[in-house]
Amino acid sequence: MDVNHSSAKAAALALRYGADAAPAAGPWNEHLDLMLSHRSVRQHQVEVARLSNNQKHIEQCPLFMAWLADVSRNERLAQQEGVTLETVPYLETYLVAAIDAALAAQNAVLAAESLGLSTVYIGAMRNNATEIHKLLGLPQGAMGVFGLCVGYAAEGVANEVKPRLPQDAILYHNTYGNPAEQSLRVAYDAKMAEFSQRNEMSQDTWTRRVIGRMGKIPAMSGRDKLVSMLNSMGFPLK
Amino acid sequence: MDVNHSSAKAAALALRYGADAAPAAGPWNEHLDLMLSHRSVRQHQVEVARLSNNQKHIEQCPLFMAWLADVSRNERLAQQEGVTLETVPYLETYLVAAIDAALAAQNAVLAAESLGLSTVYIGAMRNNATEIHKLLGLPQGAMGVFGLCVGYAAEGVANEVKPRLPQDAILYHNTYGNPAEQSLRVAYDAKMAEFSQRNEMSQDTWTRRVIGRMGKIPAMSGRDKLVSMLNSMGFPLK
Repeated sequence: MDVNHSSAKAAALALRYGADAAPAAGPWNEHLDLMLSHRSVRQHQVEVARLSNNQKHIEQCPLFMAWLADVSRNERLAQQEGVTLETVPYLETYLVAAIDAALAAQNAVLAAESLGLSTVYIGAMRNNATEIHKLLGLPQGAMGVFGLCVGYAAEGVANEVKPRLPQDAILYHNTYGNPAEQSLRVAYDAKMAEFSQRNEMSQDTWTRRVIGRMGKIPAMSGRDKLVSMLNSMGFPLK
Repeated sequence: MDVNHSSAKAAALALRYGADAAPAAGPWNEHLDLMLSHRSVRQHQVEVARLSNNQKHIEQCPLFMAWLADVSRNERLAQQEGVTLETVPYLETYLVAAIDAALAAQNAVLAAESLGLSTVYIGAMRNNATEIHKLLGLPQGAMGVFGLCVGYAAEGVANEVKPRLPQDAILYHNTYGNPAEQSLRVAYDAKMAEFSQRNEMSQDTWTRRVIGRMGKIPAMSGRDKLVSMLNSMGFPLK
């Protein structure tokens, strides 16, 4: 890659954290450039069937990947070997399976983006997790944790990198917290308002988004029933 | 990067999946090369204090990162704004926080590896999650999901890429499963036996590792109590 490293780095950090809040200087390469250039893209070129009625904005991707938390493979293995896996019913085991899916999916996202594709994660796949379970023919002990839309961004789609909370608000050394947290949030809210004005035709702050997403149970769109849905799919979550 | 693409690709895929089980041809670039070259490295150059008595093999990394599932920031935000976040007590909210930590951590792993550093994830940080919570001064609603050791591999450390289950055993199209699963596992067991013989001075199969890790509750090293530990840290997991 023929990259002017120092200018590419400064530009990427400024887009993500703001010109006034770029993290301290460090090394740079094409991998870091790729990660910092990530943006979710919700408009794709090819129309596909809807996965569920609850997903209004994500029906257009040519490739939809369902990422599974899957302990059923290990259970089949154990059955074939004539042993019992005592740890399967525990929350810990489900958590590891979900985290493993996330780690693998993030590699897939970066791989796709490195090839010029765009992606967006679909947490709404958990809205009707039991229906997804049936649709995909999953066995007990397997569950769709999230989806991933992969495609080529539609022409004309805005692709500005969304600004993030400054690292001072999320990265701590030795002990948790930053006394300036509230003022960092207020400053970030202003940046998000500008970003949303430029990209979404409406001014919105990060604070309002958090409250809108987490304030009331109906915003969970059924995911407030995740425990009972998981129980029914073979995850007792002990 | 001056990479002979086709030969680099064939070599990377053969190392990870075996020369006889390489996935179908596709594009290639330096980002994919980086991901497929990943290996966990447990021996580092600098001695640091132990994080807990339960972690015998990971005390030597110069940088230890604790990755948090953190909803407390949003709770502080809500308190400052005079609202309540009704969704906080739900398993869904904890799951999203844990997955978000995993996605960010995987970016960090790739960034570190792109700079010549090596890493290893530490799930054992959950063995004594409440003690870690106290040690790091975490508030209610924040929890160390996993650790990450970052360092430079010690000289002479074996760094062969560990072979993985073939993609036919983990990637499905439209519906779940592969009738050949058991024979794929048997073939993979043979590869893992060779790998462990070469790298760990003992012959071990993947099947035996799964049974050893998941067969009996004591192998969870305390993580069978994750639900009650999370409850005590402000995650009711409704």
